[in-house]
Order: sequence, then structure tokens, then C-alpha cells
Amino acid sequence: MTNAAPPLTTVSLQAETTHWRRRHVLDLDDFTADEINLVMETADAMRDVLAREVPRVPALRGITCATVFYEASTRTRASFELAGKILGADVLNLSASGSSVEKGESLIDTVRTLQALGIEILIIRHKVSGAPYLAAANLGASVVNAGDGWHAHPTQALLDIYTLRARFGDLRGKRIVIVGDISHSRVARSDLWGFTKLGAEVIVCGPPTLLPLELGTLRDGERLPNVTVEPDFDQAISGADVVMALRMQLERQQAGLLPSLREYVKLYQVNQARLARARPNVVVMHPGPMNEGIEISAEAAHSAASLIEEQVTNGVAIRMALLYLLAQRRSVGV
Amino acid sequence: MTNAAPPLTTVSLQAETTHWRRRHVLDLDDFTADEINLVMETADAMRDVLAREVPRVPALRGITCATVFYEASTRTRASFELAGKILGADVLNLSASGSSVEKGESLIDTVRTLQALGIEILIIRHKVSGAPYLAAANLGASVVNAGDGWHAHPTQALLDIYTLRARFGDLRGKRIVIVGDISHSRVARSDLWGFTKLGAEVIVCGPPTLLPLELGTLRDGERLPNVTVEPDFDQAISGADVVMALRMQLERQQAGLLPSLREYVKLYQVNQARLARARPNVVVMHPGPMNEGIEISAEAAHSAASLIEEQVTNGVAIRMALLYLLAQRRSVGV
Amino acid sequence: MTNAAPPLTTVSLQAETTHWRRRHVLDLDDFTADEINLVMETADAMRDVLAREVPRVPALRGITCATVFYEASTRTRASFELAGKILGADVLNLSASGSSVEKGESLIDTVRTLQALGIEILIIRHKVSGAPYLAAANLGASVVNAGDGWHAHPTQALLDIYTLRARFGDLRGKRIVIVGDISHSRVARSDLWGFTKLGAEVIVCGPPTLLPLELGTLRDGERLPNVTVEPDFDQAISGADVVMALRMQLERQQAGLLPSLREYVKLYQVNQARLARARPNVVVMHPGPMNEGIEISAEAAHSAASLIEEQVTNGVAIRMALLYLLAQRRSVGV
Repeated sequence: MTNAAPPLTTVSLQAETTHWRRRHVLDLDDFTADEINLVMETADAMRDVLAREVPRVPALRGITCATVFYEASTRTRASFELAGKILGADVLNLSASGSSVEKGESLIDTVRTLQALGIEILIIRHKVSGAPYLAAANLGASVVNAGDGWHAHPTQALLDIYTLRARFGDLRGKRIVIVGDISHSRVARSDLWGFTKLGAEVIVCGPPTLLPLELGTLRDGERLPNVTVEPDFDQAISGADVVMALRMQLERQQAGLLPSLREYVKLYQVNQARLARARPNVVVMHPGPMNEGIEISAEAAHSAASLIEEQVTNGVAIRMALLYLLAQRRSVGV
Repeated sequence: MTNAAPPLTTVSLQAETTHWRRRHVLDLDDFTADEINLVMETADAMRDVLAREVPRVPALRGITCATVFYEASTRTRASFELAGKILGADVLNLSASGSSVEKGESLIDTVRTLQALGIEILIIRHKVSGAPYLAAANLGASVVNAGDGWHAHPTQALLDIYTLRARFGDLRGKRIVIVGDISHSRVARSDLWGFTKLGAEVIVCGPPTLLPLELGTLRDGERLPNVTVEPDFDQAISGADVVMALRMQLERQQAGLLPSLREYVKLYQVNQARLARARPNVVVMHPGPMNEGIEISAEAAHSAASLIEEQVTNGVAIRMALLYLLAQRRSVGV
Repeated sequence: MTNAAPPLTTVSLQAETTHWRRRHVLDLDDFTADEINLVMETADAMRDVLAREVPRVPALRGITCATVFYEASTRTRASFELAGKILGADVLNLSASGSSVEKGESLIDTVRTLQALGIEILIIRHKVSGAPYLAAANLGASVVNAGDGWHAHPTQALLDIYTLRARFGDLRGKRIVIVGDISHSRVARSDLWGFTKLGAEVIVCGPPTLLPLELGTLRDGERLPNVTVEPDFDQAISGADVVMALRMQLERQQAGLLPSLREYVKLYQVNQARLARARPNVVVMHPGPMNEGIEISAEAAHSAASLIEEQVTNGVAIRMALLYLLAQRRSVGV
């Protein structure tokens, strides 16, 4: 207590929440660049909190959040739990196993029950694409999508943006290569929205069986500008500022979508030889958890070019920022 | 901290705890109406806490509670965890999987160990009827029964009473129908004790295979007054003030206790057509989680007559009240 | 808050941490007697905290700990969680099931990720001997070994020492018998280091198939002084001050290491008849969870001679002491 730093005050937040009108964070597809930048600036303030001697503030005291995870996770769940606790919120962890989900209760009834318990922010991960939207449509509480099926993972995209912004200052004109199983990647989808909204050029790369043919036509026939599909990794990586490797789910091979892991490694692994074709100051990213030796070499994962641990660290600040913005919106009754 | 409301003071609690002498909450069978009313009044105070801008009080600061659940649960466990945290207690969640229970340790040794760790209130759910009594008989710590086998679920009954009291003011003379699998329902058993002690008339209804023949003779040949068994739902519901549907465990069909789900739905589902036979201001309850379309129709579950979400909300206040009363008793050394 | 006792001050800790230089607690093999005694004295201060009316101090406010358990546990995990919470730390529980461990992530990547999240003290239990060392070698964060394979369980040994010190004042010259499956016991290994460093004489006893032939030659050919191997329990227990029974893993029988449980009970069970051969004031210990009726009789487990519940209670104080010492070391930047 003696070391307690000054809390985030109501004054400072009013400026920050001038433009924040969202009740939910479901994906980045409908975020404006201004909104993304607001999250970034709020995360900067959260980094300052984290740098304090006692990195705790009571900004969310009295708020209850719940992580409702229908899929296994360590880092994302822990990152949200920590973000909430640092801000003084109470965080309940509700996993699908050992819960009434197993009793066949519908998602909507489950989340309505949680809301009736007094939980104000529900952080949901679900195997089914769109599940958090279904929850959001039926709740007065706030919903944060912590990953839904192959669809979206907006908090991962925001931390990726934050990490690149810290390195490059500005994403405009940066060439970002995302390599791997694009078809089944919610990270890639949300990153595409976020990176392109901030003016980056994105090249998606991977085996043709794992590249969505219609990419760049993400919704309603709308084409994403600044997105290129390039199955040849050597082509794609040439001149890249950023290379992001995606986790290769080993079960893709059984599904007949991948000829062999050896071949995948040969053609698509992010490693030092490949990185030599990119820009000299290229950085390497991965959403984790990594299969080292498959989609990324141990050297590349742990080299000076790697931002992978920074991504994890920034994830806490980003989630603090989102919880803070959602809680403030709730308390001012927008 | 700046928003901190005045804590519940020692002064206010002394009045409240004048009559509270219990170390444990195991069932309502031996509660007096006065004791039930004391819980209700304490829950009223807790509702006031929940209505504060920062709904947190340090009344249980320094107290450690543990939820020890040998059966899956979302709402009940989360409700207790939240109740404890709102009052400033520390709450440990100990589930049976991933614990020494799997190593074959006896229940008594497990709970004695938890007591030796310094846990003062153990909230126990167990598949076996009577398990919390066994724990209570061997502990100086307090035990709260969060559901044991088919036997009792006293905190559910107390929140049901609280919810009805908020609606009707008084339960005397109210006609309450409980419909479904009475034989295997710990909720029904505890509700029967609670409702009748407060003067309500209870009609239990369901397929004859799921109705205990000896009902009303709950223990030691003692007959519960004001309890009627009525297998015909149309008869039972006529003139009802309250209709409570119980969850139908789908495995009852495999066990040969239920001819078919379709037949059950036809004869016993709580739905708008059935409710038309009750009093005009009839209310609908369900302990959750619901099988919508089986024991209750979606319309009935979400109609204006439904108190189902209020039950969940009130559950937090009731559990706060019980934890508070138990903790106070402990600290004054009764 | 009104009842808040004075916090542990920076002044008191400086004296305490004069000699503490460790970043990790991995085993007792390289602890000096002075270091063990420092932990004991710090635990005394923690017992004082636990005796307060509100047993909470903000000494570790702002510190995040995580329990990372790759093996089932109730008491050890809960003991650490409680120890952290009493000192005001935030404690995250991360179990192996439902985590990225299942996705095949390496231990080093997992713990580095947790460190990148901002977790400063990782409390690790792992099936594989040496796993916490691997983690420690790759982290700036602190690692506490909460049990690794058959290798070590240093916090259990420290609480055993603390419990005996409270009873006997000094361990010098005390005759301590550890009986059971020595070969597969991490408790026995750590206790051997700790007890002998403080001058006790240790006799290990058990079926020859479960006694390591090379015992006393624990590492690099170094022989532990004051350790005797004695397969005959009647011999071993004669004149004992302390008898510690180890949990018999019932699967040892299937593995062919144990002729029959009945025979084990006959020859090695700690019971009243056997204890009659020890010193009159002999005490009984067990690391838990117990198989009552196998390695220990119910009478012996719950007799006045039993320190088993005190072991559990002292475990909280010992873990508080260790978390405190590690956190202080971190904050003073040793």
C-alpha cells in the first residue's frame, strides 16, 4: 500500500474514451483506424502502469469479468486474467469441462446466466466461428472474442499491431508476410483486417491446399485492398519487413491437406536462410504456441529479430486497455 | 478505493446475528421459519451492497473459503466464488479432477487437510447424499452443502424462497407446483422443506415412475404438511401461483423410468398452454441449467412470467448472506 | 481494513534477507544449514501473521505467481495459492490439462511465455525429474520446485523440518525413520538432505525392492553421512524419535515391486504396535495423501503422536516464507 502509485483517474480516461462506443470486441473488420489507434494509446498508458514498482491500479475495482473458454488455452486465458487483476477487477475462470456446458445447456442460456450472476465482461473462446457474436447479440454484458473457430482473434491482432508499432512507429507501407495454414487461422484473418486498415501491405503464403482461394474476398464479396496471395515463400519473403509464422496443426496431414511435414518444413519454414531474403531489419512473429523445428526454426524463434516474447508481454497491456475501455463505457452508460 | 462505500459494520451485524447459531448449512429440514427469515433479511442487506457503485465490502477480509466440487457445475460454483469475493474473502476452487481425490484419499482426510490449510468455510458438492454431513461431523470449519446426491440443495431452496418473497411478499397460502423428476431432485427436496415451513402449499407432479411413493414422509415417518402428490399436471397446475420445472436428466429414459421424451413433453412440459390453467399472475421458475423444449418451452422460459434469471441473481445475495452469517458466528466464537 | 495489522516492513526484511541469495528453490542438496534456518525464522514470522485477527499482509502486493502443475495435487497447490494470497500476491493456477502443454509446446517455451506475461515466481510440479531445473536455467523469473518426478520436493522437506523443529527444538541427534517406497519418493530424497544437514540421523526402511541399493550415494558418488539403510522395520524403529510413513503407490504391486499389500501392511505399516518399539515421545508424520490401513493405521494417523495436520498447517507458513524471500531478493535486485 505504501508503494501504491496514483490510480488512473477519471480525468485521464475521459479524453481516452471520447471515441469509444463499442460494447463488444468481436473482430477488427468494423474497427476504424482511429479506434485501433485509441486502443494503442490506451495500451501505452497500461505499459506505464506495468512499469510501476507496484503494477496495480484499482481502475476496475468492483467489476467482475469471466473467462469462458470452450477450447484449451494457457497464454490467452492467463493474459486476460492477469490484465483484469492488475486493474483490480475480479476474474472468474470458467472452462467448458466441468461446467454445465457438458450438460448440454445452450451457449445463450449459459452466458445469460453468467450475466445474471453479475458478470459484466465475458471473455469467450469457442470452437465454433461466430459463437461470441451469438452471445453478444443476447447480452447487455460486454463480450470479448478470445478466438472463435477459424474466424477471428481480435485481441491477438491488436497485440500484433501494438508490437509492430513499437518497432516501426507506423505500419504504412510495411510489407508483412503471413506464412502457414491461412485457411484455418483466425489469427491471420484478424491480422489481415488490422494490418491493412493501418496501411500495411500483406502477403499471405502457404501450401495451396491451405490457402483460401477467395482470399481478399473476406465478406460480402468485399475485397481487402493490399492483400496478395503468394504460394511461393521465396517470392513472398523477398523485401519483407515482417514475417509471421502460423502454428501448423499436425492433424492437417491426416486430413490430406499437407503432403508431408518434411516437405512443409522445406518449403515454408521460417528460418535463417529464408530470412536472409527479407529486409535486413526484418522481424519475426508467431502467435504461439510454437512447433519449433516445423513452422519456425529454433534459431529464428529465439534470434534478435524475434518479437515473439514481446508479443506475449504486449498482450497483457492490450487486454488491460480493452477491459478498461469496455468498463469505462459501461460506467458512463454510453 | 475512492468510490469505496461504507463497509458493513460490526454494529449492524450484531443485530443480524442475534439468532444465528449454526456452524453449517446442510439442509433446511431443521431450519425454523425465523432462521429462514434471518437469511432473507441478511440477503436484503447484500442486495443493497450489490446495488452500490462499487459492489465490494471487506466484511470477510482475511477469511478463506474453498469450493470443493466433486460434480460439475458452473452457476453454483461461480455464484459462491463471486459471493465470497464481493465480501473480500479469498476463495479457492478445488475440483475433484486433478486433485488428491483421484488418488483415493477419503473425503474426511481431504476436508481435514483443507481445514489444516486454514480454510474456514468449505462449500461442498458431492454425488453421494450425505457427504457434506460426514464432512461437517469431522470438522471445526464450517460446511455449506452445495448439493449432495438426490438429497439436498439448501442454498438453491433459500434463493428460491428469496425470489418468491420478492415477488409475493409472503409465501403463506401460495400454491407452488414442482413438476418433473421429483425422485432424483435435491432441489425439490430442499424446496419442500423451505416452502412448507413458510406456509406455502406444495404440489409435486411428474410421471409416476419419477414420483416417490412415500413423498410427504420424508424422514423418520414424519409427514410434511401441505404437500400433495398429483401425477396429472393439468390438475396440479390449476390455480397455481408458482410453477417450477425441474431439469429432466436425459439418461432417465435409458434407465427405463421414462417411456419417451415426446410423451414427457406432451404431459409435463411447462409451456404457455399449460400456464393458462394457472392463476393469471403465475410465475415460472427453474433451477437451471434448462433443457429448453423438454421440461420447459423456450417461450415460458423467457416470458415476462419467468423468474429464472432473478433466481440466478438472487443466488449471489443468498450465498453472500450465508457466508457472512457463518463467518460472523465464527469470529464471535459462538 | 479497520482490522489491518501492521505490514511486514522493509526494515524487518533486510535483516532476514542478509544471507538469502537464491533465485530458485529447486532442492535442499545445496542449502547450507544457515539457509535452512533462515527459512525457518522467516516461517516463524509468517506463523505470527497467520495468528493475526486478519491474517493478511500486503508484502507481495504487485507480484504475480503462477502454479504450473503437470501432475494432480490438492494440498500442495492450494497451500501455495493460499500462501501467495495471504501475502497479497496475485496467483494464477495453470494446470497441464486444458493448456498449451497438450498442444505439445516445450516446457521451456511454456515457462518463457509465462515469464513474458509478467509472472515473477513460477511454482512447478512435473512428472519428469529435473524439469524445474530446465525451467530455471532458462528464466530470469524465480522457480520453485513443487515436486519433480522421484527427485525432489524441497518445500515438503522444509515444512517437515519446521514441524520437527517446533516439536523438538533441535534436530541434532534425533533418530528419524522414513519407511515405505524410498526408491520412488521425492519426499524421502529431499528430507534426507534436509534432516542430515541439521544433524539428524536418518534410517530409511522398506521392502528391498523399493530401497535404492546405492542410497547414501545420492550424487557424484558423494555419500550422505548419517544415513542408514535398514530393511527390517522392527530394527529401524527401535529408539526412533520420528517415524515418517510414505504413501504406497498401489500400482507398485502391478509392477512386480511389491509381493502383496497384505504382506506390506504386515511388515511395514506404521501402527500402534510398531510405535511401541520407538521412544515414548515418538511422533508420526506422513506427507499425504494417506492410504489409511495400508502404510499407516487410522489409529496412528489420528493419534496424539501424529503431526500430520501440523505438517499441512506449517506448509502454508513455509511457502509464505519462501515466496517472501524470493520476492524480496527480486526487488532488491541481488
